[in-house]
Amino acid sequence: MNLLNKENITEWFKGLQNNICQALEQADGKGKFKEDAWQREGGGGGRSRIIEEGSVIEKGGVNFSAVHGKTPQNILKALKLQDADFYATGVSIVLHPHSPMVPIIHMNVRYFEMSNGVNWFGGGIDLTPHYVVAEDAKYFHQQLKNICDKHHPSYYPEFKKWADDYFFLKHRNETRGIGGIFFDRLTANKEFSIESRFDFVKEVGEFFAPTYAHFIKKNREIPFNQSHKDWQLMRRGRYVEFNLVWDKGTRFGLDTNGRTESILMSMPPQANWHYNYQPPETSEEGKTLALLKKGVKWV
Amino acid sequence: MNLLNKENITEWFKGLQNNICQALEQADGKGKFKEDAWQREGGGGGRSRIIEEGSVIEKGGVNFSAVHGKTPQNILKALKLQDADFYATGVSIVLHPHSPMVPIIHMNVRYFEMSNGVNWFGGGIDLTPHYVVAEDAKYFHQQLKNICDKHHPSYYPEFKKWADDYFFLKHRNETRGIGGIFFDRLTANKEFSIESRFDFVKEVGEFFAPTYAHFIKKNREIPFNQSHKDWQLMRRGRYVEFNLVWDKGTRFGLDTNGRTESILMSMPPQANWHYNYQPPETSEEGKTLALLKKGVKWV
Repeated sequence: MNLLNKENITEWFKGLQNNICQALEQADGKGKFKEDAWQREGGGGGRSRIIEEGSVIEKGGVNFSAVHGKTPQNILKALKLQDADFYATGVSIVLHPHSPMVPIIHMNVRYFEMSNGVNWFGGGIDLTPHYVVAEDAKYFHQQLKNICDKHHPSYYPEFKKWADDYFFLKHRNETRGIGGIFFDRLTANKEFSIESRFDFVKEVGEFFAPTYAHFIKKNREIPFNQSHKDWQLMRRGRYVEFNLVWDKGTRFGLDTNGRTESILMSMPPQANWHYNYQPPETSEEGKTLALLKKGVKWV
Repeated sequence: MNLLNKENITEWFKGLQNNICQALEQADGKGKFKEDAWQREGGGGGRSRIIEEGSVIEKGGVNFSAVHGKTPQNILKALKLQDADFYATGVSIVLHPHSPMVPIIHMNVRYFEMSNGVNWFGGGIDLTPHYVVAEDAKYFHQQLKNICDKHHPSYYPEFKKWADDYFFLKHRNETRGIGGIFFDRLTANKEFSIESRFDFVKEVGEFFAPTYAHFIKKNREIPFNQSHKDWQLMRRGRYVEFNLVWDKGTRFGLDTNGRTESILMSMPPQANWHYNYQPPETSEEGKTLALLKKGVKWV
């Protein structure tokens, strides 16, 4: 077994980006990723891979980055630490499908370390169906639960709740979608080695492509009409609202001179807003809204 | 002359909302405002007036509100003041036209007072053309300068710079549009009475309707094609980014349980995002981008 260090964690994330892009191109059948390599002034850089106008995926990105430099003061302050250098690497994904019957998906897996020896893993994955289908939601959460349970019985309940709380639009009193898992600052401690934290993150990363390929295959041929499409465009408006108002990663990036086009690859190709649109409670749209709540037990 | 107090300031803002809605319906020729009256749990309320699918105006709102209650702690802290009640009233407007040749416009005029005797006026108006036309920009700024100059020679340069700094997308290094004026905390002092501050705010408020009617009349018949429309939809994406990421009023409202649908009336009916779209420098779109900078002297 290799020694765990930032170099081989970085290589693993690069490989994950490669594997996911390959698997998504295969699942889509038409779309191809285009790569933009970029460098960061303060140190490091990344490779953004963007897909537009695929057969199933309308717009999305699978981004890898590995950046380093002086640790931002707000992080040091929150941790009550002195000046230190940092190194951060990870993979971030958002995919917006053409069809309102295929869910939007997001995943982020990341590693962070400082020159003072502090290090951790973080990440999350959540699904945003335009129409919530209980069967799909159960499938998604059951698989996440299986991965979590292999590591610790507390992982799934804890990280599922964290996702409910994180992917939440306070100003709408709605969750972004059916949630998933979210976790941060997974360090080594009495119970867990840093290697076991990495093993967990790896399994989450490897879960992504087959799971989304499953939803593509299952839902791509479901027929839809203009009213489904209109609803999708409004739900994408909510996605924009979450990312720009509440998502800490997005806001931190935009505020600290991150690479804007890589950060905002999460924006949908098109989003619509109507004033105060409220679907009838008994409609499919109304039933979906009723399920966008914290604490739903999907499994 | 009436004594200046919150009651007659409130009445004036209500009348302004009425007058602007009437003038806009006339200028549009087809669209009609629909009113939603709402009440605030902590005290007060408002009347949101929304227009959708007009002849010229695709979506917009002219909102009046008058709210009161306990002053939020962050305001008290910033001013180093003890607990106090507040009263805030004003009119907020955003209009998104169908045609990319007609500019987006925004105005806000407001009055704020606390039970400790502190009171001030604030506001702003800015124009966001999808295509910057020097003649229109000059017309807009010249009229704002005329209003400002009647009150104090420092008003226009100071409030124009304030608008450049406020209506700025740091993550894009772009101004939202050609700016206008922005001002806040205009209190009574040695040089100005609170009455003279109100007179200035009144003139800004009364400037709105005839000015936008002028742009509607001048530009509504200019022909455009799909590529102009595509550009408009991307520029609306920038408008969304500004409002959700940077606009202090929007963020404060969403964060403090404001009426979401009234706050987000500023969202366009449709906005699009393409990854890293950069128009050729010599195109009309490229020339517009080159003008979205701070410090342009329009007059």
